[in-house]
Amino acid sequence: MNAIDLHDKLELFDDHWAPRTVAEYNGHDVMVVKVAGEYRWHAHPDTDDFFLVLKGRLHIDLPDGTVTLGPGQMFIVPRGVQHRPWADEETHMLLIEPTGTPNSGDAATAAPRRVL
Amino acid sequence: MNAIDLHDKLELFDDHWAPRTVAEYNGHDVMVVKVAGEYRWHAHPDTDDFFLVLKGRLHIDLPDGTVTLGPGQMFIVPRGVQHRPWADEETHMLLIEPTGTPNSGDAATAAPRRVL
Repeated sequence: MNAIDLHDKLELFDDHWAPRTVAEYNGHDVMVVKVAGEYRWHAHPDTDDFFLVLKGRLHIDLPDGTVTLGPGQMFIVPRGVQHRPWADEETHMLLIEPTGTPNSGDAATAAPRRVL
Repeated sequence: MNAIDLHDKLELFDDHWAPRTVAEYNGHDVMVVKVAGEYRWHAHPDTDDFFLVLKGRLHIDLPDGTVTLGPGQMFIVPRGVQHRPWADEETHMLLIEPTGTPNSGDAATAAPRRVL
């Protein structure tokens, strides 16, 4: 019954593109992640993709252009839409995805579920 | 296809305990809200309740004690658990609830859905 401090959770790891679950909410994993560099183009056929930037700057390439997010800014990629997130500098985010959703849109290449 | 800036959204209104929807995510409303003072004890029988503080300080009384959240801290009240949020100072939050969930746990007394 404690507050979950997102900054404290982010201090616990250093690898990139490897989300950590910090809470569960209505069948979703609430996760923190550090990213830098470029991820791959992918889509999630059955779920929207929730991004909230806590620190740094995230770019999300989409079929029709690029969205850029700074701290306190969020974006939801609708289900089925191809997207490629990338960051020039290390960027920290809150993510929410249904529990069990592969982060790459493909179970074979997805990061394992890690719980903090 | 624009970033959603939570601070900008919060500048658009001043009333308390009246969440505004800023995005939709997997059948949920992603909302911002300003609160001050005390809400009522309530529970949501069918949904967890997601709180992330952006500014200020939120207290959530629970059956077994009180959780206090500052900026960057979150808490999820499990479904069915009675809780009473309150704040001594004006506090800004991100909330997530299934679309159509009464914020008081009771449709008759809940705030209407407002979309920004």
